[in-house]
Amino acid sequence: MKKWIPIASGLLAGFVAATISFADFSAKTNTEASSSTKSDAEKVYVPFGQKDDYYLFASGGHSGQMFIYGVPSMRKIRTIPVFSQDSATGYGFDEHSKKMMGDYTWGDLHHPAFSETKGDYDGKYMFATDVGNSRAAVVDLKTFTTKDIIQVPNTAGPHCAAFVTENTEYMFLPTRFAVPLGQKYESLDDFSTQYRGVMSAVTFNEKNQRLGIAYQVALPPWSYDLSDAGKKSSADWAVMTTYNTEEATTNMEINASQADRDYIVLFNWKELAKMVKEGKYENVGGQKMIFPEKQKGGIYLIPVAKSPHGVDVTPDGKQFIASGKLAPTMTVFSFEKAFKAVENKDFAGERNGIPVLNYKSVMEREVNPENALGPLHTQFDDKGMAYTTMFISSEIVKWDPNTGETLDRVPVQYSPGHSVSAEGDTVAPDGKWIIALNKIAKDSYLSVGPSHPESMQLIDISGKMKVIQSSPVDPEPHYAQMIKADKIKTINVYPKDVKNKEAVYKQSDTKIVRNGNKVDVYGIAMRSKFIFDAKAKRPDVIEVNEGDHVTIHLTNIDFDEDITHGFAINSYNLNMEVQPGQTNTMEFVANKAGTYPLYCTNFCSALHQEMNGYFLVKPKK
Amino acid sequence: MKKWIPIASGLLAGFVAATISFADFSAKTNTEASSSTKSDAEKVYVPFGQKDDYYLFASGGHSGQMFIYGVPSMRKIRTIPVFSQDSATGYGFDEHSKKMMGDYTWGDLHHPAFSETKGDYDGKYMFATDVGNSRAAVVDLKTFTTKDIIQVPNTAGPHCAAFVTENTEYMFLPTRFAVPLGQKYESLDDFSTQYRGVMSAVTFNEKNQRLGIAYQVALPPWSYDLSDAGKKSSADWAVMTTYNTEEATTNMEINASQADRDYIVLFNWKELAKMVKEGKYENVGGQKMIFPEKQKGGIYLIPVAKSPHGVDVTPDGKQFIASGKLAPTMTVFSFEKAFKAVENKDFAGERNGIPVLNYKSVMEREVNPENALGPLHTQFDDKGMAYTTMFISSEIVKWDPNTGETLDRVPVQYSPGHSVSAEGDTVAPDGKWIIALNKIAKDSYLSVGPSHPESMQLIDISGKMKVIQSSPVDPEPHYAQMIKADKIKTINVYPKDVKNKEAVYKQSDTKIVRNGNKVDVYGIAMRSKFIFDAKAKRPDVIEVNEGDHVTIHLTNIDFDEDITHGFAINSYNLNMEVQPGQTNTMEFVANKAGTYPLYCTNFCSALHQEMNGYFLVKPKK
Ligand SMILES: [Cu+2]
Ligand SMILES: [Cu+2]
Repeated sequence: MKKWIPIASGLLAGFVAATISFADFSAKTNTEASSSTKSDAEKVYVPFGQKDDYYLFASGGHSGQMFIYGVPSMRKIRTIPVFSQDSATGYGFDEHSKKMMGDYTWGDLHHPAFSETKGDYDGKYMFATDVGNSRAAVVDLKTFTTKDIIQVPNTAGPHCAAFVTENTEYMFLPTRFAVPLGQKYESLDDFSTQYRGVMSAVTFNEKNQRLGIAYQVALPPWSYDLSDAGKKSSADWAVMTTYNTEEATTNMEINASQADRDYIVLFNWKELAKMVKEGKYENVGGQKMIFPEKQKGGIYLIPVAKSPHGVDVTPDGKQFIASGKLAPTMTVFSFEKAFKAVENKDFAGERNGIPVLNYKSVMEREVNPENALGPLHTQFDDKGMAYTTMFISSEIVKWDPNTGETLDRVPVQYSPGHSVSAEGDTVAPDGKWIIALNKIAKDSYLSVGPSHPESMQLIDISGKMKVIQSSPVDPEPHYAQMIKADKIKTINVYPKDVKNKEAVYKQSDTKIVRNGNKVDVYGIAMRSKFIFDAKAKRPDVIEVNEGDHVTIHLTNIDFDEDITHGFAINSYNLNMEVQPGQTNTMEFVANKAGTYPLYCTNFCSALHQEMNGYFLVKPKK
Repeated sequence: MKKWIPIASGLLAGFVAATISFADFSAKTNTEASSSTKSDAEKVYVPFGQKDDYYLFASGGHSGQMFIYGVPSMRKIRTIPVFSQDSATGYGFDEHSKKMMGDYTWGDLHHPAFSETKGDYDGKYMFATDVGNSRAAVVDLKTFTTKDIIQVPNTAGPHCAAFVTENTEYMFLPTRFAVPLGQKYESLDDFSTQYRGVMSAVTFNEKNQRLGIAYQVALPPWSYDLSDAGKKSSADWAVMTTYNTEEATTNMEINASQADRDYIVLFNWKELAKMVKEGKYENVGGQKMIFPEKQKGGIYLIPVAKSPHGVDVTPDGKQFIASGKLAPTMTVFSFEKAFKAVENKDFAGERNGIPVLNYKSVMEREVNPENALGPLHTQFDDKGMAYTTMFISSEIVKWDPNTGETLDRVPVQYSPGHSVSAEGDTVAPDGKWIIALNKIAKDSYLSVGPSHPESMQLIDISGKMKVIQSSPVDPEPHYAQMIKADKIKTINVYPKDVKNKEAVYKQSDTKIVRNGNKVDVYGIAMRSKFIFDAKAKRPDVIEVNEGDHVTIHLTNIDFDEDITHGFAINSYNLNMEVQPGQTNTMEFVANKAGTYPLYCTNFCSALHQEMNGYFLVKPKK
């Protein structure tokens, strides 16, 4: 195996310096931009009456939310709250979303992934993970709302996710941080024996729209970074990168970068599922846990240049490409060769009880474009060509996975993490566009103080690569997927749900029901009033006693496009929305006596300002 | 006085219909857009290396946040969290912002207002109000962060705010909802006698960056909607609109629109300040409250077309223009005439103890552009021309306040609430641009489900008015101000604060201090590691006992542009950011035993992924 030493020596010092100084391509870019401003402006401009060609779904990182953009205009269309509270929509305030979020109001959303059918985005669902509080979520693309969230036990920070298998059989969630099983307290002195990096096989039941955990795998106590599912002939397999195979427990920036190589984990998820079926697992905190050192087969290691970040499967499913991060190398591996090595037990020993495939038997090509530093992640176009983001040299390099030849390169501003090409993670990418998700904007935009926005740059890849738009973005997109607009079929109005006992569709059915100190309101929101009890003297007033437990069910009976109502009670820190036809619920204790206006928070009509009433709380005597 | 009856008859039915069908201008607009797409595209395109000319500060409505855009590109640069939690920046999670927010995590941010010097935006501060939970806030434009929030007692929903006087002496917060003083419980049957609409005079102390309440005024129990401060010769005065002068208590959409006219409130804030100085107030819940029916002078009413929305002072300070909302009329009033009427006691009686000025003596002109329906809000250009948004007929009408002549009109998509012109609320507007804040986007953008985005449209007003860009926007901008980019002077790095006992700038000063079950951490964040105790075996590990009260002070010692670190503890629902040079604090009880990774949440360097440690919580025996 090739030694990475020449590249690695002095690497850390160089990298730290690079994050301060960056290779400066801005002068060159400016000139280019000026000479062809007109056509670039036209390319990204979508006049009124026309629509964007693609949806961009970008993970919102520690915002806990998902950001939806239109491409090529790069206009942000929507924020979908997933793991964190959203004041605007009342997400995390209404009962349904509050329960779904558990005890959490914050999240760190990484790596969204579309549901797939035959390896192609099918436009039905979007999955995502929360590195902060170890959760997984599913968003329904008919309504652009979060439908389910599960807590993933035994794991801490599913960063290396989500990637879905070709027919959305599983979404795999390998963990970034090793922790003791059950996340028990264990000394870091016992890290190698007591800590584990756990991968979870998450399933999605489309009928009841619920996520579940099929099984887990207790991997070695390393960090699992990024991953991809196989395609076509490699569809039963998946790959992921590792770092800190040194099993360091402190000062990771130095200690986790000592070894010349880390590993790619290659696994066959059908074999793992078979193991589970055959009972080859242990029960750990209610989860079916496979221990690879005991249950051999299905999981293999492949040596790779140190601390790799991305590993990406080519659209034809024949190769996977690992990006070196701390070595300036993209390594192309062959699935076919890997399968052969597995079959022939062509092993270079074991590590932590897992067979290590012979590097030379599996590796097809090491690619080192001149002066390209910090390769992180690779996307593909319609010709199968690869585009790799270079974090340190701040550029995207286009190259041919079949020859290793560098075909083109374009500077980006600055420090791209991931990039996303149109339909880039499918069996059939579209070409046309690639977007660089840059970590650092420096002074690209009007200053907003010490904390700068990040930057997304749209690159036209139809000819010579060219950055044609730069868009600031709130922190912090990590990964994104781009889907053809016509694949997404939304609804405009929620259908009537006659089975829903919380819903009221007729004004005469509205009522306020009292049982002891429990008050249940079955109300209606409509242009331009609230009706909580149509028979009352003041139908838009709710009166309770101090200390009452109040539940307000509210149904929006405007079955019209774009007529969403909001509902807030002054000084009670409560807001929720009811989209057209939707029923939503607010539950709280009326612990403050007094007079509190209630009002519609989402502009709905010319008389929106008049859409208010009162919430009166009679004081305890 | 003119009767508005012809307009008012059947008005409600017509308005409700209008919100469904809308006047459809889209075909016409499309044609226009297509024929000159190229130049429109170029006008809004800001190539890399160049920057936008203006900052747009838009209130984020029930998001509780402020949205910052660049103009003309209409790219969103930043979200500033003000009244609601923000997962991304840890706002509302760290101790400083949590305390500032009080018990609230949600807000409804309306009507931002720049600080002014001599009637011109000075670029130093931005003020805003929370209709949801009755608060006021100030944002420092050196750092784009919220510096102070106050709760405003005796009021419910300061919608009719904030407007600042010409040298930021006061920011006035009249309330949208009438409540009993002290927000006590009182029957709605006693609305007219027991409820009040309270206006607060809020001050800002620039030295200690704190907001305060100078005095309050107990106005009649009406709804106060929008307001503006006088300018130049009218600088000591201010105006605001009212609705529900009917004092209705239910079914507002009908009952609050019965009277042909409501009122403009005209007041002299210098006279009010004098009253307070002379002790002419009562103490209500710790506030100095002026009762206008007892302390005469300084406050007057002017009749105006029913349920007016905006009232806007012309840049020269000579006129104020009320928009009818439920009457298709903009009414131009003269300050000079009003002052004369006050001086001559030219009253048409009193209402609720406040003198009513004779309409004919004060009114200068009623303006009714043909078929223009639902006037809401007026902005101005550099020639003093007026631009009024028409909610119902979905257009902006340009007209001359001195003649009433209609000069130009442009359809917008759809239902504009407010609009904002460049430096539009100052004594010297810039012209060039006006942006329509449209409440309804219908199918203008890629669909994101039943809840649609709103829409902001950029209009070039340098020649014939033309919409040249349409931008979707998250809910829900209500009002905005646009400032010349060079007026804002940000800092890039927080200066060292040697007096701050929570800050640690030297690695050797880091420490973990235990006092009983209280643990205080004085740590450092730097590329690419955390140091909590430099002398420990594992400097990046914090170990505590279950139940310990933990306080973590963290200082970012990277005094470099754009190097913000984040700090999160897995499964503890905690995240905060430390901007370059900043110290921030997180406080919580370690109530879960176990092993929890901690990590940097804000991308900072090539080794960001390695910037992590552990938070170990030893279980109780
Ligand atoms: Cu409404
Ligand atoms: Cu960091």
